[in-house]
Amino acid sequence: MESSRKVIELFYDVVSPYSWLGFEVMCRYRNVWNIDLKLRPAFLGGIMQGSGNKPPGLVPNKFLYMTTDLHRLAQYFQVPISPPADPFEAMFEKGSLSAMRFVAAVQEREVGGDKQVEQVSRELWLRIWSQDKDITQPASLSEAAMKAGLSASEVEELLKLSTSKEIKDKLKRSTQEALDHRAFGFPLAVCHVNGKAEVFFGSDRFELIAHCIGEKWMGPQPAAAKL
Amino acid sequence: MESSRKVIELFYDVVSPYSWLGFEVMCRYRNVWNIDLKLRPAFLGGIMQGSGNKPPGLVPNKFLYMTTDLHRLAQYFQVPISPPADPFEAMFEKGSLSAMRFVAAVQEREVGGDKQVEQVSRELWLRIWSQDKDITQPASLSEAAMKAGLSASEVEELLKLSTSKEIKDKLKRSTQEALDHRAFGFPLAVCHVNGKAEVFFGSDRFELIAHCIGEKWMGPQPAAAKL
Repeated sequence: MESSRKVIELFYDVVSPYSWLGFEVMCRYRNVWNIDLKLRPAFLGGIMQGSGNKPPGLVPNKFLYMTTDLHRLAQYFQVPISPPADPFEAMFEKGSLSAMRFVAAVQEREVGGDKQVEQVSRELWLRIWSQDKDITQPASLSEAAMKAGLSASEVEELLKLSTSKEIKDKLKRSTQEALDHRAFGFPLAVCHVNGKAEVFFGSDRFELIAHCIGEKWMGPQPAAAKL
Repeated sequence: MESSRKVIELFYDVVSPYSWLGFEVMCRYRNVWNIDLKLRPAFLGGIMQGSGNKPPGLVPNKFLYMTTDLHRLAQYFQVPISPPADPFEAMFEKGSLSAMRFVAAVQEREVGGDKQVEQVSRELWLRIWSQDKDITQPASLSEAAMKAGLSASEVEELLKLSTSKEIKDKLKRSTQEALDHRAFGFPLAVCHVNGKAEVFFGSDRFELIAHCIGEKWMGPQPAAAKL
């Protein structure tokens, strides 16, 4: 019997709060829809530079709107988003390059699934987009990884690996793959349907994604996971 | 018995295809949800200038994405969007100032409802965003209005009225009201709930709008109108 399991790649960066919404919703639906979700940690800074896009927050009305929009979406999607006191410093001055290299390293080493990638990513989002904590320093990455259940020795190895050429190149490749799909921001969901890649930007196309892959959108909290 | 009928103002401009999606969906739901939909024709050019926002189509990847996104949304929402051959010329060089003044004039004269405003707006969208036809010349506005059921003499009067100071000021005021709600683009839905204005930008927040006003989102084609 042929499987109709659809592959969905989710490109994201923990610096992006809309990515967090997309990430949590897709992680909930991976057990509900007949999909194979592939987490694709990448670097949003490289996407903005590569596409020539500018952060939306530079237009004052848009920034004010996004604050309200995120607050409402966080409540509706039940994701504990709380903006850092200085979002510009957190997002653009400090950035997420070391954090995403670390996530790429976690992914490189993890075998038999992506539970660690998922949990480490979530802990990093919790730091920057919920608790207003640093995600640039090794101690910060270490704390996030320990909370995600990794051991001290694993974390030590991953921190070292995360600054290697191998991992820097891996993150670059993932970012370039997103650009090849014409990314100009994150999250980016790439749905592979009948040999074609259908690309969806943002965390507001779930209903359309469902339609595209022949599944049903049941809101942000799908009632039951499929067995 | 107190009515719990919520007022939703929909600010739009026929130059904007995402406004068309928002317009058609809200027009479908005005008979399904317990709402009082107020159509608010305004001028998107004034919003972009007043907010300092730039058209999204200037980033090549974003432009390519929007083309795909609009095509998918048009099918899903069943709105016959087909981009003009030269969207930049249609949207930015020719623009919609005379068209939106004309719609404002229609609204100024219409009594006992907004059926004419709705139908004239739709006919203008059909011209620019479905049939690649002009919406700047008096003959174009006239043709749209006649298709919407207005008589030749009404159209003649409205064309004259649409260039009056009264109507120019009316459109400016509506545009300024949208800016006061911190608009940076259209469509903009302003939901008046418990004395507070909840503002939603774009045509991808219907589910959230429903949640906000205590109604149910039933997809782009709600099955039955409430009696």
